Amino acid sequence: MGEARQRGGARPGGRSARVQVAVHRAVRELQAKGEPGELTVPTVAAQAGVTPSTIYRRWGSLAQLLSDVAAEKLRPDSEPEDTGSLRGDLRTWLEQYVEEMSSQPGRAMVRDVLGGNQPENAALCSTYLRQQFESIQARALARGETPPSTDVLLDRIVAPMIYRILFTSSVPEVEYFWRLLDDVLEGKPAAQ
Amino acid sequence: MGEARQRGGARPGGRSARVQVAVHRAVRELQAKGEPGELTVPTVAAQAGVTPSTIYRRWGSLAQLLSDVAAEKLRPDSEPEDTGSLRGDLRTWLEQYVEEMSSQPGRAMVRDVLGGNQPENAALCSTYLRQQFESIQARALARGETPPSTDVLLDRIVAPMIYRILFTSSVPEVEYFWRLLDDVLEGKPAAQ
Repeated sequence: MGEARQRGGARPGGRSARVQVAVHRAVRELQAKGEPGELTVPTVAAQAGVTPSTIYRRWGSLAQLLSDVAAEKLRPDSEPEDTGSLRGDLRTWLEQYVEEMSSQPGRAMVRDVLGGNQPENAALCSTYLRQQFESIQARALARGETPPSTDVLLDRIVAPMIYRILFTSSVPEVEYFWRLLDDVLEGKPAAQ
Repeated sequence: MGEARQRGGARPGGRSARVQVAVHRAVRELQAKGEPGELTVPTVAAQAGVTPSTIYRRWGSLAQLLSDVAAEKLRPDSEPEDTGSLRGDLRTWLEQYVEEMSSQPGRAMVRDVLGGNQPENAALCSTYLRQQFESIQARALARGETPPSTDVLLDRIVAPMIYRILFTSSVPEVEYFWRLLDDVLEGKPAAQ
């Protein structure tokens, strides 16, 4: 993401890029304070040192800005850890993912990325996951293991977690998702 | 939902209930026109014959109003069809659900219900699904069949569909989800 996704085709290092960095940082700072009521276009503008109209012109609405910030936060900052086995790699990745996504800020991030009518931000989340799975799959193949396909991992592990984050009041512990993973890896049908 | 869920504890038939009916109807009428730009608090208020401040006072924001309307639309208006078998009941239910949810208005409905920071509306969607599954499960048990649990149906069928509606640009055809259903019913592991 970053420079390539800037609206209006801003040149890296230009004023437009500086505005984006300042406004994104302002949103993160206000979010870190944890007062949702303080997250408005005027307070973000004041914190970033720009005018509210700059934000409206560039992002259209607060929801679109929050969606962009959430998509950037959801970009993984490292490769999935190499634990020496497919099962270990997936369990470790899943533990971190469940911990991050089921936290209060994680749930807000998932909701934010879907807001503002910007399906490309939501699609980006899937792309990031596909890239993480491709790393794990490539390492597994190099070890002579047979990894599950990305569609199977999305349908059987990621989708149930995201569904529960969005549509239910409590998200199960990681053990629940590890069992779903075991069912996939061992080719077992799900418990009825 | 309906009367029982009204904000402010309005009595059925009172002014508050009439305002809710008129405002919900106005949103549906404007949505049916299909011009998203026309869906604003002032246009909804004008269509419903109330003042914008009535809407802000009662719903707080357009997103919260749209979430309420979407939750009401998502309430099933009938029992799942009885086809004479568990497999038939689930396939028929799934066909209708995929058709409804993957349509443009269906996708908008899923996004709307998640907006406005009203997790109780999202939770209501899960509750409606649980009720539909309970009908199908009860009929299956009465026939001597062994139905899958609701958690299995949510994780294996509903979650993958909702995930694809929200996070990918295209939703697979019903045949894809019928295969997921077959895997569950036949106790087969998912294709790798």
